[in-house]
Amino acid sequence: MKDNLVLSYLENYSKKTIPLFNYFFNAKKNEARKIGANPYDLLKQFIKTAILGKKIRGALMVLGFEIAGGKKLEAIYDASLFIELMHSGLLIHDDVMDNTDLRRGHPSLHKQYSPEHLGKSMAINAGDLAFYLSWEKLMNSNFPTERLILAGKIYSEFLTRVIYGQILDIVPDNNKTISKTNILSKLRYKTAEYTGVFPLLVGAILGGMKDEKKLRLLKEYGLALGWAFQIQDDVLGLYGDKEKTGKPVGSDLKEGKKTLFVYYLLKHGNAKQKSFILSILGNKNVNSQDVNKAQKLFKEIGAYDYVIKLGWDYVKNGKKAVPAITSDKKLQKILTSFIVFMMERTR
Amino acid sequence: MKDNLVLSYLENYSKKTIPLFNYFFNAKKNEARKIGANPYDLLKQFIKTAILGKKIRGALMVLGFEIAGGKKLEAIYDASLFIELMHSGLLIHDDVMDNTDLRRGHPSLHKQYSPEHLGKSMAINAGDLAFYLSWEKLMNSNFPTERLILAGKIYSEFLTRVIYGQILDIVPDNNKTISKTNILSKLRYKTAEYTGVFPLLVGAILGGMKDEKKLRLLKEYGLALGWAFQIQDDVLGLYGDKEKTGKPVGSDLKEGKKTLFVYYLLKHGNAKQKSFILSILGNKNVNSQDVNKAQKLFKEIGAYDYVIKLGWDYVKNGKKAVPAITSDKKLQKILTSFIVFMMERTR
Repeated sequence: MKDNLVLSYLENYSKKTIPLFNYFFNAKKNEARKIGANPYDLLKQFIKTAILGKKIRGALMVLGFEIAGGKKLEAIYDASLFIELMHSGLLIHDDVMDNTDLRRGHPSLHKQYSPEHLGKSMAINAGDLAFYLSWEKLMNSNFPTERLILAGKIYSEFLTRVIYGQILDIVPDNNKTISKTNILSKLRYKTAEYTGVFPLLVGAILGGMKDEKKLRLLKEYGLALGWAFQIQDDVLGLYGDKEKTGKPVGSDLKEGKKTLFVYYLLKHGNAKQKSFILSILGNKNVNSQDVNKAQKLFKEIGAYDYVIKLGWDYVKNGKKAVPAITSDKKLQKILTSFIVFMMERTR
Repeated sequence: MKDNLVLSYLENYSKKTIPLFNYFFNAKKNEARKIGANPYDLLKQFIKTAILGKKIRGALMVLGFEIAGGKKLEAIYDASLFIELMHSGLLIHDDVMDNTDLRRGHPSLHKQYSPEHLGKSMAINAGDLAFYLSWEKLMNSNFPTERLILAGKIYSEFLTRVIYGQILDIVPDNNKTISKTNILSKLRYKTAEYTGVFPLLVGAILGGMKDEKKLRLLKEYGLALGWAFQIQDDVLGLYGDKEKTGKPVGSDLKEGKKTLFVYYLLKHGNAKQKSFILSILGNKNVNSQDVNKAQKLFKEIGAYDYVIKLGWDYVKNGKKAVPAITSDKKLQKILTSFIVFMMERTR
């Protein structure tokens, strides 16, 4: 199996960090319990799903650190919790904005409370909490203060762009101005940069990488990886197995997201096909029959092949940068496998 | 007028920082514009009210710095933007949770967009944006990295508790367990600590204060100041001038907040008075007649005097710590006036 190397890298990352998560969360639970039953309860709800992620970003941060020649592996594993906490916070706020009911196989955080307004308020707090816990983790990491400040600068800079990406994502597009460039730009800001570039870069900075050329190539590789990740995310959103992804199939359609699938169909479909897609897009009453019909339609018309090819093009481009990023053969192999894995993953 | 010293301290703070805000926001606007019209628009909406605050926290941060003997005033003014940005972010999320329609004399951020769900989503993003811009400002401040990291640790620690305070605030209280201790604890976490202690402490740390005893006294003073601030906030919420506070009168009642006024009345009122208050508490249809009746009732029964006295008790206690915090007579005078001003302010 091609992705064995990545799966074992991710497994090792999980094995190393789960005790660190538990240690951190236990300390936090003790603090929250002293303040009150409700803060303690919300923290527990947060923790329940926070540790269930794929942990791709945390693992990439460790990989960036290794590429930079960083030696304090214990410290980087611990510091990397910050990026997973941040990601969990983003997802909680995102689920409120997108009305997503299911996350990592559990009801989304805002669905854990009723009435609805309390649920959303709790989710706003849980996301904010995750962000500040994330900063706490970074600020308390065992690295020279200059590197931590540099990491903090990068963190705030990337996250500002993620939020701009979220805004692009939630304001309805005009059907006429929908373009490949616009869609890719949205995917870049809302996901690709913070999933691919940010973890590798921050890991490399904490590992002491200073070579401008290497940093630039690492960013190029990371962006390609991030785009491949998001493209496969859209593929899994339509054709994935709910049991594996932890998300309902077809939710992008229900939420009215103008994915590359929709873009291709609106460009190449006939009037009837277009009107069908537009009729289900953003329609809260979409049922599984509609989703099935859309799945078939995207395949028939070539949208599926188009999206898959685009993803693999990013993989191909990203791979090219690898030899100049590191001369370590083992790390080269992991980098190459990691970007391939982005398109092969099923969860 | 007793508070002249504070008003001029605040005015000077505004004069010094408004150009810094403009400079920072102009750079941010340029970045956002490149990403898209909607991010740019949201940033502009955010800026519109972000610069209208009372700026008590930013000014207190500068005061803490001066007390520590810090000399780089230019750097502390610039760094202090972080605390005002954070505060604006908190208010935006708070307004969503509390269904507050008016903030700083303008419609709350979530009311600037429709439909409602888009407004709330935009407000989630605006708050998140404010938090990350706040960190960007702090991380890029011109202080030794060790001090910045220490400030960052304090920042994340205090904000975690603010969020816990928010949770205490939004989950409905049980009428039977409402107690003075619980209410004061809520006020402490949701406001007093981050309004009073945090700015003074972070300013002092950036100014190089290391004396444990002074730091402890500064925290005590700050907590008393923060409590007085929140108590007067509750007073203004019921008896203030909407034109000055920028917030509608009686909104705490509408939102069902168990303030000290309500606590006192439920403890000392007769059956009819209690049932009147419980009938309007959390009632969305509260009108100005109901608010007038509640205002009168709180005065008649002694709740008003009780709350005012409690606020002034904090002022008295806080003042006691002043001489040991600094031997500088001018700074002593500002500290004393500042805590008095918390109860005398009308906005």
